[in-house]
Amino acid sequence: MALQYSALCKGCWQQMHVPIPLRGGFSMPFRVVGIRPSRMNPNICTICEMMFERLMKARTVTIDATILFADLRGYTRLSQSVPAAEVASLLDTFYDHCAEAIWAFDGLLNKTLGDAVMAVFNFPIKHPDHARQAVLAAREMQRCFAERRAQLAQLLGPEGADFGVGVGIHTGAVSFGEFGHSHRDLTAIGTVVNIAARAQAAAGPGEILVTQEVRDQAPVELQDRAARDYTLKGFDRPVTLYTA
Amino acid sequence: MALQYSALCKGCWQQMHVPIPLRGGFSMPFRVVGIRPSRMNPNICTICEMMFERLMKARTVTIDATILFADLRGYTRLSQSVPAAEVASLLDTFYDHCAEAIWAFDGLLNKTLGDAVMAVFNFPIKHPDHARQAVLAAREMQRCFAERRAQLAQLLGPEGADFGVGVGIHTGAVSFGEFGHSHRDLTAIGTVVNIAARAQAAAGPGEILVTQEVRDQAPVELQDRAARDYTLKGFDRPVTLYTA
Repeated sequence: MALQYSALCKGCWQQMHVPIPLRGGFSMPFRVVGIRPSRMNPNICTICEMMFERLMKARTVTIDATILFADLRGYTRLSQSVPAAEVASLLDTFYDHCAEAIWAFDGLLNKTLGDAVMAVFNFPIKHPDHARQAVLAAREMQRCFAERRAQLAQLLGPEGADFGVGVGIHTGAVSFGEFGHSHRDLTAIGTVVNIAARAQAAAGPGEILVTQEVRDQAPVELQDRAARDYTLKGFDRPVTLYTA
Repeated sequence: MALQYSALCKGCWQQMHVPIPLRGGFSMPFRVVGIRPSRMNPNICTICEMMFERLMKARTVTIDATILFADLRGYTRLSQSVPAAEVASLLDTFYDHCAEAIWAFDGLLNKTLGDAVMAVFNFPIKHPDHARQAVLAAREMQRCFAERRAQLAQLLGPEGADFGVGVGIHTGAVSFGEFGHSHRDLTAIGTVVNIAARAQAAAGPGEILVTQEVRDQAPVELQDRAARDYTLKGFDRPVTLYTA
């Protein structure tokens, strides 16, 4: 997917109708004072990233958001059997596909750790159907990664078949803000985040698992999807998940 | 622990004997051009963080390093039973204790994701006994968090007892560099990283688990420690881990 980055900050424009140039000559004076494209989403600016803090004068806020976790199933095993350069290249591809899919649907690539990625949808760029956007981003990730997966399956035989992206998505109220004082860190926390992470852990290679709440927000995309109850680590009651 | 931050960049000083001021009036001209304390370690500068790239003209390099993972055991369960503000405050405390312990022993707080923290020792500030430094940092984390853990155990009863920091440490050759092109990300990858992550997953609340290689580098601190074979996810052979 050839992603065209926005010339103006989408967050500032959507929420304040202020045009903040992100690219080209007009962006220069802004860059000098530290206003540049966010590393988490190149279509918003660094002010926007921190907007909740400056505007709301709170360190954390409760927002309605969709959380997406993706990771590479079989990554640990694969790291042992393929050369280091191949592992690095795989991770490059994975991060790139994830970033582009997340940004194409206006999400924030909030975190990467090893073979895992966490994204937040509906902040700071808002969409009434943010859960649906996250599902579409997840499908785009799977579509982009399918080619690489097929190559590996060919290269590695049965072992390659266990390799692929697993995605988990949940939506609801999260605490978004900066945590820690010595090392400040912008992220979302709460049970919605934990369920999304556990749903991802339950997903097989190539699979997307979403909660009932996500399904309710994307009824067209997710009608007639199979439901199954999963026992998720840290949760007493089973959680119903749908393949998307 | 009252951590005194360094006035000069420890990395630039150690490796090039160039004094780069990080704090006070002399740091102003440097800050204007973007040279400031790194978010990953306030005792090194942002150039230093990227040094491997500029000096070595490679996107990734293989370095000898120690990798430490820490996470909050029982966090998901606890998130459901205590108020959101208390969860946020816990995470604040956890990140702060981790950051200060890691920095006190010259490590890089490379990543945080939810209740997990990843640190790298021996880059860019070098120590011949980096594995030992990581063990000392882990013990400092546990010591700092013990008080909070005791409070929670009192507040929550038996449930609180399942709560605590689990740490895993491994040492050896890692690929360090930037991964991804759209979203560039500075981190370490490789089997050493994966084993450290799995050792952490195997550690109970309040426990530190280290590999044979770590034990060999810290013989005084870790003599007479109990060894146990663990089956780690993604690894065929059992791995011997020592409590530290």
